[in-house]
Amino acid sequence: MSAQEHGRGVGQIVRNPYTGEFDYRFEAVTSVALDTSVAARRAAQSAWARLELSDRIAVLHDLAQAVRTREAELLDALVADTGRVHISRMEIQGLYSAIDRWSALAPSAFEPDGGRSAMVETVSFASQQVPYALVGVISPWNFPLSLATIDAIPALLAGCAVIIKPSEITPRFARPLLAAIRAVPALADVLDIVLGDGWTGQLVVEQVDLVCFTGSIATGKKVLAACASQFKPCFLELGGKDPAIVLAGADLDRASTAILRGAVVNSGQACQSIERIYVSSAVADEFVDLMVTKANAVDLNWPDISRGILGPIISLEQAAILKRQLDDAVAKGGRILCGGVIEDHGGRWLRPTVVDRVSHDMLLMTEETFGPILPIMAFTSPDEAIRLANDSQYGLSGCVFAATDDEAESVGKQIMVGGVSINDASLTSLVYEAEKHAFRESGLGGTRMGIGGIKRFFRKKAILRNSGLPFDIQQFSEHAPE
Amino acid sequence: MSAQEHGRGVGQIVRNPYTGEFDYRFEAVTSVALDTSVAARRAAQSAWARLELSDRIAVLHDLAQAVRTREAELLDALVADTGRVHISRMEIQGLYSAIDRWSALAPSAFEPDGGRSAMVETVSFASQQVPYALVGVISPWNFPLSLATIDAIPALLAGCAVIIKPSEITPRFARPLLAAIRAVPALADVLDIVLGDGWTGQLVVEQVDLVCFTGSIATGKKVLAACASQFKPCFLELGGKDPAIVLAGADLDRASTAILRGAVVNSGQACQSIERIYVSSAVADEFVDLMVTKANAVDLNWPDISRGILGPIISLEQAAILKRQLDDAVAKGGRILCGGVIEDHGGRWLRPTVVDRVSHDMLLMTEETFGPILPIMAFTSPDEAIRLANDSQYGLSGCVFAATDDEAESVGKQIMVGGVSINDASLTSLVYEAEKHAFRESGLGGTRMGIGGIKRFFRKKAILRNSGLPFDIQQFSEHAPE
Repeated sequence: MSAQEHGRGVGQIVRNPYTGEFDYRFEAVTSVALDTSVAARRAAQSAWARLELSDRIAVLHDLAQAVRTREAELLDALVADTGRVHISRMEIQGLYSAIDRWSALAPSAFEPDGGRSAMVETVSFASQQVPYALVGVISPWNFPLSLATIDAIPALLAGCAVIIKPSEITPRFARPLLAAIRAVPALADVLDIVLGDGWTGQLVVEQVDLVCFTGSIATGKKVLAACASQFKPCFLELGGKDPAIVLAGADLDRASTAILRGAVVNSGQACQSIERIYVSSAVADEFVDLMVTKANAVDLNWPDISRGILGPIISLEQAAILKRQLDDAVAKGGRILCGGVIEDHGGRWLRPTVVDRVSHDMLLMTEETFGPILPIMAFTSPDEAIRLANDSQYGLSGCVFAATDDEAESVGKQIMVGGVSINDASLTSLVYEAEKHAFRESGLGGTRMGIGGIKRFFRKKAILRNSGLPFDIQQFSEHAPE
Repeated sequence: MSAQEHGRGVGQIVRNPYTGEFDYRFEAVTSVALDTSVAARRAAQSAWARLELSDRIAVLHDLAQAVRTREAELLDALVADTGRVHISRMEIQGLYSAIDRWSALAPSAFEPDGGRSAMVETVSFASQQVPYALVGVISPWNFPLSLATIDAIPALLAGCAVIIKPSEITPRFARPLLAAIRAVPALADVLDIVLGDGWTGQLVVEQVDLVCFTGSIATGKKVLAACASQFKPCFLELGGKDPAIVLAGADLDRASTAILRGAVVNSGQACQSIERIYVSSAVADEFVDLMVTKANAVDLNWPDISRGILGPIISLEQAAILKRQLDDAVAKGGRILCGGVIEDHGGRWLRPTVVDRVSHDMLLMTEETFGPILPIMAFTSPDEAIRLANDSQYGLSGCVFAATDDEAESVGKQIMVGGVSINDASLTSLVYEAEKHAFRESGLGGTRMGIGGIKRFFRKKAILRNSGLPFDIQQFSEHAPE
């Protein structure tokens, strides 16, 4: 039995991705403390669900206000967690936007439905929405604040209580966020954050009624197996290996600008980053030249964290994966045209790295990369491009560039992914309103976006009334008429 | 390696539930034949999905016509499978109704959605519905035809191909149904039925992209674990232990008529049958008297299959479970007021069996019964009735009787089940239009009823266009404005 099971917290030290120093320490939640938190959340949930939706919306806006008064502290924590400033600011602004956006959408999720039966005309029916009592959110390190709250906000609006377990790689933001939550007692009753590693994650899965997991396929499959053995629903948002297709007639300047952004934003540490680029052989040379020129113009945010664009590789383990994939590609004939060196400045950085002469026998084209790498492969026909794009275990999203939007869409409709951007890249990382499912091993469960993103947190219960005579077993006798 | 794996069919003999004789034999599908069927279904599916919805609807209506011309043969097979005539006729009529009902509903499931983003005003989005390619339906013996087709029809309309694996206890209906399917070549391309036991079921699960399973909790959990290990979605419709609550002011004549029907129709062999009856102590004696009187008026369909009401217990194993539950109840103080004897006339029958003085330490009040047994327990307050109704691992459906519909509904809203009938029983087994989820261990996955019953068979893919400039990585620099 571990110390944590005994009820003693386990101290964990955390690396700073910008300096490379281990400069932060947190105590993992004890199983006793987790039990207490779960019991408190469960006790408060039914009253929370009975509130008017407008009251739950007001409480979430109170959270936004409480965050605003702690914004500097939260920003400092996020910057220390991730080694970047601009995107940390965007994460905080994104939290306010998410609260506004989900609040605007929630009333339609709760719209009453029902009607009169066409099968038995005396029967009418209506729906009751019954939220799952306690939702567990297990979130990753690449966007610590956004991905901790992306499922929590719609779940809270649906009437659930929520426990968030963020990644142990980026735990610093939890303290100021929890302070903001606790400044809103009505919210603190039904929302908690607990810290710890995978062991804590397992404990959370065991305690909740529904699990939202964002992370790797490997861990996602373990979470799914655990949920199946515990007979509870599980929403998985896993990795991606998003393809970009550039057809011969495309505006190459536009395509290279958009794909570069889609591939290197947040140093490629995004499930929806472009990781495979298929270009018509007719324009491949020109496209590669443009891409290298634009890639070379992207600065690191080192040595001055307040300048430049690309932050460090947050996870040391991920830096090793990037190196392994690049080494494998070069060994198999890939050619690095710019970037390509994991720079050690305490933290690790990688400049935008364009690689051509790649093929599908390379890890770079099959495994998730999660770094600012742009492998480019030429194709000779749209059918070949579609076949290559679909030759993947992943199916998160992708993009297509062509002379016209309609031409791009006709190709995009044949890509087995949940979101396709037309003549732009990774729009699903900027616009969260369109319902979409993850295809293949990129995920499982309901849409996280759009109105379905709220509805997946409650079950529908049908209430049926019969204004006519009750059905009688005598009507079911063998000699009864039809 | 079994004979079936080697590609030889395994002969299985089947008991006739009316005569008790083993009078039918079928060959389980070989793994080679299953591979062939799967390959053919997959090859045809994309063209099926590309058809206009109205064409798929027309093909299903052709199936209805093909069944009509084979109705006598199908009825004979169902009667031999189940030992009952009237409900077999209802199953066939129900197939025609289901095709009509789903066809009427399907256009709204395919309604285009989309819009312009409020987050980024130059971005518009639309949805593409992408059906799962191949759905596996594993269906039980209690309503052989209805439950083989209940998921298959909406899946086909959604654009999926389907393979049905019916229960090996009631396989006879498959032959005439398959003949009807094969009379409609466009349908036969995308719909097949394969016979076999649990081993065949496992093979089917391995081959398909999505599994619909209707059956016991024990088997359902195995199917769920297999689907989780194979990373595929799984819709489970499992057992029930539906409670009925009769409050003091209820119309006892109406309540006893409705509950009797809800409990004993199809000899209780329905997941949505009433299996626990909680009656206000103020009216319990009167209610029990009424129930016994009405129960005694329900005849068996033996010795004349064309007369009477209750058919045989289809599964011998189930007959043993009924006996075990009744013995356990009597040993613990339960009192059988009528029925109670498993009658052996070749097949096995049980007359409607009213049991009072029951408690929650009896199997009869905790395990699924699946027989025409009405255990009645008195309560002293509505809160106690709600607590008793919710004291179950099941959460399928239930019903409440009170002086007014509103009073019944206020209690019904507190029962953790997916469907509540108000002043009538088991309306969800007669009206399939209201969306509902199974609660607790009664199921997992999307609603089988209503428009969601079609939508769960496709994934939504978002297609996003940006009429403005593409997003540029330079906008993400650390010194960029918000």
